[in-house]
Amino acid sequence: MNDGFDSPDLLSVDPLNKSVGYYASLRVIGQFCDSYILCQDEQNLLLIDQHAAHERIGFETLRGQYRDHGVERQGLLFPLILDFDHREVATLKEHQAELQHFGFELECFGGNSFVLKGIPQMLGDAEAEKLIRDVVAELISFGSSSLVEERIEQLLVLMACHRVIRANQQLSRSEIDYLLRDLDQVDFSGHCPHGRPVVQRLSLVEIERMFKRT
Amino acid sequence: MNDGFDSPDLLSVDPLNKSVGYYASLRVIGQFCDSYILCQDEQNLLLIDQHAAHERIGFETLRGQYRDHGVERQGLLFPLILDFDHREVATLKEHQAELQHFGFELECFGGNSFVLKGIPQMLGDAEAEKLIRDVVAELISFGSSSLVEERIEQLLVLMACHRVIRANQQLSRSEIDYLLRDLDQVDFSGHCPHGRPVVQRLSLVEIERMFKRT
Repeated sequence: MNDGFDSPDLLSVDPLNKSVGYYASLRVIGQFCDSYILCQDEQNLLLIDQHAAHERIGFETLRGQYRDHGVERQGLLFPLILDFDHREVATLKEHQAELQHFGFELECFGGNSFVLKGIPQMLGDAEAEKLIRDVVAELISFGSSSLVEERIEQLLVLMACHRVIRANQQLSRSEIDYLLRDLDQVDFSGHCPHGRPVVQRLSLVEIERMFKRT
Repeated sequence: MNDGFDSPDLLSVDPLNKSVGYYASLRVIGQFCDSYILCQDEQNLLLIDQHAAHERIGFETLRGQYRDHGVERQGLLFPLILDFDHREVATLKEHQAELQHFGFELECFGGNSFVLKGIPQMLGDAEAEKLIRDVVAELISFGSSSLVEERIEQLLVLMACHRVIRANQQLSRSEIDYLLRDLDQVDFSGHCPHGRPVVQRLSLVEIERMFKRT
């Protein structure tokens, strides 16, 4: 009897929001395997991969910020002093300006040490050290060439992965509603380095065929 | 926000029922297009055609009663006087004993008139006149031979169709729970003249494949 939807969440209702997007307008049926959100479109059963959706939203948001004025940053309450090896240090120094544009505030601290003072605001819950180390590893894998469009996107994807709703996570009704609203902000038509689909549709016609109704 | 599951229905909780069957043990996710019940099995998304399920339950119940001691009957509060044509009258007279075993109480009223005094208890909500007329039409279509097994089942199917949850009907949580419990009583392994499937499974593996997770 625990379907997680027993109590409607008033926080998720916004009577002032008159222009409801496609995803926000869907009728939420529920969650499958704590990983997929089932919704109803007019004549379709929609399965939304909550992990892929959240990742896509994160990526698009980061990309938008990156293009506009650089990824928004937040200071760490407790700056981290981190040691790197020689190769990493070279990469960090080479890409210092880019790293700032990606939302990192990183300063030399003498020798092979750096102080990480800020990380992308969106990734506030991420483990800052793991995040910067992953980013540096990615930068190294790119080689010394400048960051071209595709590589920028790869880096943004990697960053988006750090703030993601995992599969196998039960979502409250308001978390589902927020996710659907956020999906309305995402430009699905644009090129996206993530190949994984976010939404799959099973039409009523297909379902009726499964049941030999047609 | 109207998903029909806002208020848990206490009536559907039976703490004393320790032997919960397979269907009753499913986690109900919700309803799609007011026609399909979506449930979660361990690793499967189950789609249950509520119309087909209800029909199958009705058929199996009627068949069980028919085999045991004849279909259970209930008296009509207002008996119906019905006129039939000559062919129908002949059929009604020929099959009077069978009709009683099928749960009908029908008496000659002189000429071509009959009084319908009782109908199958399970079909209490059915339109009694339409029901008996359909049954007579079916009997006529069989010809004058005695009712063999297959024809009996056809007639029970026809009767079961008269007490069915239609597709496009929103079900309350307790109605869903009752339907699932009733499904546990049905012998799905047995031969059934209804060809339409009641349940379809979409495994987590298949869904993951749809989302290119595997």
